[in-house]
Amino acid sequence: MPHIQLAEGLPGITGPMAFSPQTAKPLNDLAEVLLRTNASDSLTQGERELIASYVSKRNECLFCSTCHGAVADYVLGPEKQTVAQTWEDPTTAPISAKLKALLVIADSVRQGGQCVSPEQITTARQQGATDQDIHDTVLISAAFSMFNRYVDGLATWAPADPAAYGQMGAMLATQGYAAQTPSAQPSSI
Amino acid sequence: MPHIQLAEGLPGITGPMAFSPQTAKPLNDLAEVLLRTNASDSLTQGERELIASYVSKRNECLFCSTCHGAVADYVLGPEKQTVAQTWEDPTTAPISAKLKALLVIADSVRQGGQCVSPEQITTARQQGATDQDIHDTVLISAAFSMFNRYVDGLATWAPADPAAYGQMGAMLATQGYAAQTPSAQPSSI
Repeated sequence: MPHIQLAEGLPGITGPMAFSPQTAKPLNDLAEVLLRTNASDSLTQGERELIASYVSKRNECLFCSTCHGAVADYVLGPEKQTVAQTWEDPTTAPISAKLKALLVIADSVRQGGQCVSPEQITTARQQGATDQDIHDTVLISAAFSMFNRYVDGLATWAPADPAAYGQMGAMLATQGYAAQTPSAQPSSI
Repeated sequence: MPHIQLAEGLPGITGPMAFSPQTAKPLNDLAEVLLRTNASDSLTQGERELIASYVSKRNECLFCSTCHGAVADYVLGPEKQTVAQTWEDPTTAPISAKLKALLVIADSVRQGGQCVSPEQITTARQQGATDQDIHDTVLISAAFSMFNRYVDGLATWAPADPAAYGQMGAMLATQGYAAQTPSAQPSSI
């Protein structure tokens, strides 16, 4: 049961976002820029969602890891099982050497900002990472360290049915995050 | 030295924000709503800044803890030394019993969302905390778990001179965060 009164039937972060549309807007705007608008050949939408799901998995956040894993699978091609293999062991997953190096940085940020080492940055650069890739990786990991705590700190409900996440993943992959912000009008008006 | 090339002379988060104005906007908008717009008699601006500085101190983020500590001191009255006493020991600090209970929740969120216990929530309610107070406390702690990681994960520069933070604190307390978002136009154009 959630720690505060949330509308029933809204999974994960959508409950608190309906409770507080004023904060939902910048939260969704941040996800939109980081995971979609900033996507490029250098760090694609699928790779950004994979970083988000990996950080959330390591933080043991069921809702965020499964939801963003579904987005990543939708974009990367679910038959490739990229998300499952990355969660299992990123060093042997079918992803680029650059992304593997960025995931090491993301996992350090997740544990604490001071855990990122100059050696981790050097390795990522040797694999072709740009300043923008490193910046965005650090902020994606930091942002999901927030989203995970928001979702679990309020003890929100996460669907047990995997099919629910497949639908969410397809919707988020195609419509994006900014479109998900609930109306700022309280439902009582 | 920062892990990526940032403009010199910009302290803490202002360096990455100048590097990436697109993400600076939702980050500042989030701080504006959480720390200022949502402030009320139930959870004041000074109390919100105190939660932010306490979480940042516990995360050992020099820039964020000192900066938001300066905002809190500016609002609460620096002669009271509320920030220093809260950092030292919140249980004996000159703050309300409700805020003490909310700081316990904030410290749990900082460690991980699942660390928040029903007993911590019950204690906060017994001291008068509302659903909105609990929601905002969880999200302030989650958001500063992000800001701290963004600032330290990129190894940004933090001023050693306390006077620099006093000026920042007064500016942020009076002008707010949304006003700090740098222009989205790259400086090269």
